[in-house]
Amino acid sequence: MTELSPITVQLGARSYPIYVGEGNLETIGDRLRATQVGARTAVVTNQTVAKLYCGATVKSLASAGFEVATIEVPDGEEHKNLAWLAFLYERMIQARLERNSSVVALGGGVVGDLTGFAAATFLRGIVYVQLPTTLLAQVDSSIGGKTGVNLAAGKNLIGAFHHPRLVIADTEVLASLPRREFLAGIAEVIKYAVILSPELFDYLEEHLGRLIQQDGEIVARVVHACAQLKALVVAEDETESDYRAILNFGHTLGHAIETLTEYREFLHGEAVAIGMAFATRLSVVRGMLEREVGERVIKLIERAGLPSEIPRDLRPRALAIAVEADKKRNDGRVKFVCLEGLGSTQFVHLSTEELNKVLEAA
Amino acid sequence: MTELSPITVQLGARSYPIYVGEGNLETIGDRLRATQVGARTAVVTNQTVAKLYCGATVKSLASAGFEVATIEVPDGEEHKNLAWLAFLYERMIQARLERNSSVVALGGGVVGDLTGFAAATFLRGIVYVQLPTTLLAQVDSSIGGKTGVNLAAGKNLIGAFHHPRLVIADTEVLASLPRREFLAGIAEVIKYAVILSPELFDYLEEHLGRLIQQDGEIVARVVHACAQLKALVVAEDETESDYRAILNFGHTLGHAIETLTEYREFLHGEAVAIGMAFATRLSVVRGMLEREVGERVIKLIERAGLPSEIPRDLRPRALAIAVEADKKRNDGRVKFVCLEGLGSTQFVHLSTEELNKVLEAA
Repeated sequence: MTELSPITVQLGARSYPIYVGEGNLETIGDRLRATQVGARTAVVTNQTVAKLYCGATVKSLASAGFEVATIEVPDGEEHKNLAWLAFLYERMIQARLERNSSVVALGGGVVGDLTGFAAATFLRGIVYVQLPTTLLAQVDSSIGGKTGVNLAAGKNLIGAFHHPRLVIADTEVLASLPRREFLAGIAEVIKYAVILSPELFDYLEEHLGRLIQQDGEIVARVVHACAQLKALVVAEDETESDYRAILNFGHTLGHAIETLTEYREFLHGEAVAIGMAFATRLSVVRGMLEREVGERVIKLIERAGLPSEIPRDLRPRALAIAVEADKKRNDGRVKFVCLEGLGSTQFVHLSTEELNKVLEAA
Repeated sequence: MTELSPITVQLGARSYPIYVGEGNLETIGDRLRATQVGARTAVVTNQTVAKLYCGATVKSLASAGFEVATIEVPDGEEHKNLAWLAFLYERMIQARLERNSSVVALGGGVVGDLTGFAAATFLRGIVYVQLPTTLLAQVDSSIGGKTGVNLAAGKNLIGAFHHPRLVIADTEVLASLPRREFLAGIAEVIKYAVILSPELFDYLEEHLGRLIQQDGEIVARVVHACAQLKALVVAEDETESDYRAILNFGHTLGHAIETLTEYREFLHGEAVAIGMAFATRLSVVRGMLEREVGERVIKLIERAGLPSEIPRDLRPRALAIAVEADKKRNDGRVKFVCLEGLGSTQFVHLSTEELNKVLEAA
């Protein structure tokens, strides 16, 4: 395949590169060494990923002269908490990491967020690197410096902005993902296309079949395109003071659905798919978006095998409460990312009453 | 007394004011409101301080229109840990703090560091304010954005740089400090004078008696002078990449002494006093500092009732190991802040061998 160009997240002195490609996992050693960090590093991963990719990662790092520890945390969102964070700190101490040491997050969003937060706070901040192994992590969570852990009261309530020094997305590793998880990742891909890139949207409409079949070249191209879009958004508004919030398209309702179903029925991307379909319909109903464009969006979601309807057993009132309880509320109104067209968004603030009404009509 | 001018820590968009004065605790409400944070806030304090000053603080905040929660953590360095951090997060959730809410740290360094770290990481960072109630916190730890908690393996191993929005140092509250703790705070005062200000050093030589007697006007002037010096250092080198490390004068050996005596025999300032005397003698021995100036420094330390000799029961070898285990090591050598004169410092890097030698000779 053609070589994909490195992407840079432009953040002045904290700029960092993202490498997307097939089989580039083994470049980690040389690329980390080139950043001139100290000789000690630790690879943080989970059991599932460890079996598949930890060996190659450690080998690459050791060949480049690193003294490598490995730290395993359990898989699953429910372990992205303060207890496992404390465990991670202890293991980082045991690995004798110092201020100039680094940590390498090898895994999906849970490993990335937890490792990133540990790196943000260990000795007031050390270098970390993202080696995302899920589609969701490659196109979204590994880029942008959002790190954090959950509290019982909610997801990501504790966190910090701390950018990786380097992101290497090896799209070949996605072949080992469970099919349902890969498809859920497609939801975020569709998100980028809808809110930011009519070109990517056209490309997806044309190539969705091969993408779903995990054609290597198509997957790499799509991940590269998404990473590039995310990098631009992050560079524009690093700490989500305003513009970056467009990335929450589909997430406002999506989070509420995840909460109400206790994260058991839907993968994150599936809940986001429902949320995107809802926000799209809301945009049409409010006269902001042409009906035909809305239909194209929803059709693409459905073609990817993703859900587009709010489950019948979730009551509008319960959903409204869950949306409002979400941390994104502002002055009692809820902010939705809506569409004016492909690649064109607008924030819509709904009062409790309005939200109830549109949910009942949905 | 004459009004003391507000000090500004110059950090561009993150600049913040420090107000030093007698009886200014009750200005917190109006001053916090002026920063345009949200209506919810929580005062974090400890039992001892709560009895004395929490009422006035809450009253001032409530009068200014804030909805105030209070959160008590236990007193003492041993509680500056992940368990009490988790407790603090839970209480912040219960207080329904949001992204635009704030927390107010009312207490000494432990409350300030813990609260600051919680603020740095709650919802990826909320506003906090320092109301330091110890001399050490007023002249040092409340300024500069260093926040953190301890691990079993060492102090402040977990942390973040997160600046307060506002510091109010009410020097009147120092009257309730145990005498030994007040004197230990003087060690940091002497530190600022020695490393940064011959004028302050002269002033201390002249007024140390009245300072120790806690003459209100002298105390306020001295705290103001120290806060001003610290503000300049922090503005110069926010994240301690280099210059700010001069504030570690006396701390390299001081930390080792605290570690070896398990924080039981010496207050932080007392250990720092021994460390300053050691670094001063080291500077004289290496021919960097005139003997008479060195003697003036050590005499001032002793006049403040502070220790200036390494305890006889601490073996040089044990001290050397403890110094090297400290997180400030760099390439196997230990960095000491030494003196070339009053207000003039130089970093000296000692190898293990050299360190052993000077400790044996001490």
